Amino acid sequence: MKIALAQINTVIGDIKGNSEKIIEIYHRAEKDDVDLVMFPELSVCGYPPLDLVEKYEFRKAIADTNKRLSRETSSVGLLFGTITERYESVGTGLYNSAMLCYDGRIQFVQNKMLLPNYDVFDEVRYFEPAKDVFLHEFKGEDLAISVCEDIWNDDDYWKHRRYHRDPVRELIGNGATILLNISASPYAYGRRMERYNMLSTLTKKDKLPLAYVCTVGAQTDLIFDGASMCFDRKGELCLLGKSYEEDYLIFDTNKKYTPVRTIEKTFEEEVLKSLILGLADYARKTGFVKALVGLSGGIDSALVTYIAARAFGPENVHVLLMPSQYSSEGSIKDSLKLVENLGISKNIIPIQPVFEKYLEVLKPAFQNKPPDVTEENLQARIRGAYLMAFSNKFGYLLCTTGNKSEMSVGYATLYGDMCGAVAVIGDVYKTQVYKLARYINREKEIIPWEIIHKAPSAELRPEQKDEDSLPPYDFLDQILEMYLEEYKEYDEIVERLGNPEIVRKVLQTIDNNEFKRKQAAPVLRVSRKAFGYGRRFPIVQKWRRP
Amino acid sequence: MKIALAQINTVIGDIKGNSEKIIEIYHRAEKDDVDLVMFPELSVCGYPPLDLVEKYEFRKAIADTNKRLSRETSSVGLLFGTITERYESVGTGLYNSAMLCYDGRIQFVQNKMLLPNYDVFDEVRYFEPAKDVFLHEFKGEDLAISVCEDIWNDDDYWKHRRYHRDPVRELIGNGATILLNISASPYAYGRRMERYNMLSTLTKKDKLPLAYVCTVGAQTDLIFDGASMCFDRKGELCLLGKSYEEDYLIFDTNKKYTPVRTIEKTFEEEVLKSLILGLADYARKTGFVKALVGLSGGIDSALVTYIAARAFGPENVHVLLMPSQYSSEGSIKDSLKLVENLGISKNIIPIQPVFEKYLEVLKPAFQNKPPDVTEENLQARIRGAYLMAFSNKFGYLLCTTGNKSEMSVGYATLYGDMCGAVAVIGDVYKTQVYKLARYINREKEIIPWEIIHKAPSAELRPEQKDEDSLPPYDFLDQILEMYLEEYKEYDEIVERLGNPEIVRKVLQTIDNNEFKRKQAAPVLRVSRKAFGYGRRFPIVQKWRRP
Repeated sequence: MKIALAQINTVIGDIKGNSEKIIEIYHRAEKDDVDLVMFPELSVCGYPPLDLVEKYEFRKAIADTNKRLSRETSSVGLLFGTITERYESVGTGLYNSAMLCYDGRIQFVQNKMLLPNYDVFDEVRYFEPAKDVFLHEFKGEDLAISVCEDIWNDDDYWKHRRYHRDPVRELIGNGATILLNISASPYAYGRRMERYNMLSTLTKKDKLPLAYVCTVGAQTDLIFDGASMCFDRKGELCLLGKSYEEDYLIFDTNKKYTPVRTIEKTFEEEVLKSLILGLADYARKTGFVKALVGLSGGIDSALVTYIAARAFGPENVHVLLMPSQYSSEGSIKDSLKLVENLGISKNIIPIQPVFEKYLEVLKPAFQNKPPDVTEENLQARIRGAYLMAFSNKFGYLLCTTGNKSEMSVGYATLYGDMCGAVAVIGDVYKTQVYKLARYINREKEIIPWEIIHKAPSAELRPEQKDEDSLPPYDFLDQILEMYLEEYKEYDEIVERLGNPEIVRKVLQTIDNNEFKRKQAAPVLRVSRKAFGYGRRFPIVQKWRRP
Repeated sequence: MKIALAQINTVIGDIKGNSEKIIEIYHRAEKDDVDLVMFPELSVCGYPPLDLVEKYEFRKAIADTNKRLSRETSSVGLLFGTITERYESVGTGLYNSAMLCYDGRIQFVQNKMLLPNYDVFDEVRYFEPAKDVFLHEFKGEDLAISVCEDIWNDDDYWKHRRYHRDPVRELIGNGATILLNISASPYAYGRRMERYNMLSTLTKKDKLPLAYVCTVGAQTDLIFDGASMCFDRKGELCLLGKSYEEDYLIFDTNKKYTPVRTIEKTFEEEVLKSLILGLADYARKTGFVKALVGLSGGIDSALVTYIAARAFGPENVHVLLMPSQYSSEGSIKDSLKLVENLGISKNIIPIQPVFEKYLEVLKPAFQNKPPDVTEENLQARIRGAYLMAFSNKFGYLLCTTGNKSEMSVGYATLYGDMCGAVAVIGDVYKTQVYKLARYINREKEIIPWEIIHKAPSAELRPEQKDEDSLPPYDFLDQILEMYLEEYKEYDEIVERLGNPEIVRKVLQTIDNNEFKRKQAAPVLRVSRKAFGYGRRFPIVQKWRRP
């Protein structure tokens, strides 16, 4: 069978735009003389649509579109992800479905059985699970059609399974000859190898070819990397879709391919591309064409500026340099060098005059209270106000520059440096920020080496250094990664890293700073556990480890 | 059987504090010679614990506490809500359980079968559903023990059921003689009558007594109103727990009671008490003792200040009056009158000097661009910076003053008037704000009538009125309520209210402002659908109604 995989970038809610894209590619595939064209999970409405699913006018538009798509079909199969609905006396009656159309009609619908409801996934909130799975005979093959998670419960691959049933195993037992899976699988570094390993194990075991089409593109905080895969009966990867862009593959299940060996590239390359796509798609899908960054002279804002320049083009990136009395001379100099290296535009606007005016106005009320975090935060908030004023006046998308280490321990000012539409590196630890910067400079200096080499500082009081308030980043980041991503707790962390007092304090500080993260900009997700939608802690709580 | 209902206010995560409270009340009940004492759902850890459940050290502390509580028991039953865990090869192995202890041991555990996963509920994320339900024979009675949602699926009461099974019906079928339900049911106006109607229908139909114990207190945004209920075999309400405070009831299933007739008071009384509890608990559970409000002279901030004075005591409430060149004379005068009426403290700090300094500094970059929303937002952000400076310097909890109508259509400034820890009236429409203010003034003027009578204005430009930018609030609020709470869409709203262009524009404006609400403070929930955790829309999306 000759199968086209359409790895498309959809816009959530844009049912008209998405379906036009589906039709266009379908007709192109018809000319390529394929038997079937497949599109990712929920292609019609974009993934994840969240509570849009609860709107009946939204569902009505989808139902109409399903019919419209079916009417476009010839004898070439059109398989796509959509929502279907039927009246049932119990439950929502809504399904996350794979729909197969040909000869002008909807011919077959397979609903998703395994509904992920962990981390960033909330599918039980909206959908009912399929009660059964069925093969569909098409052009001499018995197609086993499944949706995303349905293929993620193989009991040979998983030590601990989430679900009791294994729909793909059931379909294979029923005599499937080809496996088709339509997916939307958010990226985190290592995820692509995991997909490969899992799917390769499955296809090798059952000696069946698999076409696995994935969505690509960013949806607010979630980045989908594409990289659709086709496996032959030996579990060899025959075709691998492009990463971070749309692609169109043709897989002939009877042809012999040279196996693909490079599945995933380095952390630096993958994460940088993810973030560039994440920021570019946020902008494109919300209509922004220009970006703004507050450039401090530190490495975080330098990295975000680089990413913005790649996402928007340097001619569309503007930065503000907002020195204070505590800013080092180097900060300005290094920032100007970055501006030059990237070819972007800038303004320099000191915060001192406004800061002094604030202090003057507040003095009578503050009496002679000594300076404290109030004055530090105030400086950050003046910068936030400058940035937002530029954003409002000129229509820039403001990029937030905080990294994951800072966000973890609340080393950031609400309504100050946390201002912005999207936290570009909010899921990148400080030590990883350095890695990315070095990678960017691998051939020539783009981020000035002075920025990479100097000690991190918020520059909000004289001689301030991050390490006055925080453990060294290489140690802090180890704690954070164990705690946030590996789900390790105090005992295990101390066993591996020692320093019980520091570990205890760091964990408590993370727990205590939920209130700041509640009001943070959406964080582009590149790890297995990012702050935001996939990590849900009470703000008011008193959990204290014994 | 003599049953004590302990309607307690727990703190999420405070396993030690919560369990000490349980033990104390249990021993008190022993002296009252009851047969059984019952505590609400997840009393040991507080409800909802969210992702704390995913921490094994947290679950370990709960498991230890379960044992510890059991060892405290005599022959008097101790029934409480907790988490139990068992190793299973599939799924989380975690259960939301009702645990019955006596004679020093855990005697019986009934896991929750119906796991709510809609609106603010995410229980499928954490727990496995009970596969079966069992009666427990205790002191000659066959107890049907259930947890919250388990009792909310009666097929005579619900036209459309969420779940296939009905565990309470199954228990009744097995021969239950007494129904016990432990709950955590967040309040919204009308909810208490709904609970009453549903439970009364059930008990009347089956001629069984029911003790239904509810948690009380606020957990970040969710407000639990208490109001535990006991029904006799005729479906009459025998006992009703206090609303908005802890209570302790003794229900004798063999005694005759005079039925309670007043279940729920007026909207104004209920909602005001909810908000006062919500704010007071946020502060108490996070350790704040003083509150701060920015008083504009408008009705929203006046109402929030009143609520703060009730929650903290007037001596602990401070307000800032921050007039601009566009503030009317009345704004200051009316605000000062409110300060006097409430007996709170204040500072007056004009924003003009700082505003002018900002304009001066930004002028070279802004060149001769005409004033626009930039300058309006800047004023709001100066106020935000003042308030946060006071909060940082003196340790005030900053209360956000935006109402639900404004939050719906994004008529609020990010990092400006949206600054604060908790959005006190973010779930109260503007027209309801007026209702509450009039109610507060029912005996004497507390909120100056001038504030109630003047036309709403942000006072950010000359002669500005809200109705220049928005439809009249009484019309807007009807659209909002239909759209947000009744799940009506364009066609139905226009059919009821007319004005298709306005309705279309309002709905689109609501949809477009998700990015602001993402960064908003938690909203105290008093309606059936509040902004925040229970309403999850993509930020980046292009849904357009046809």
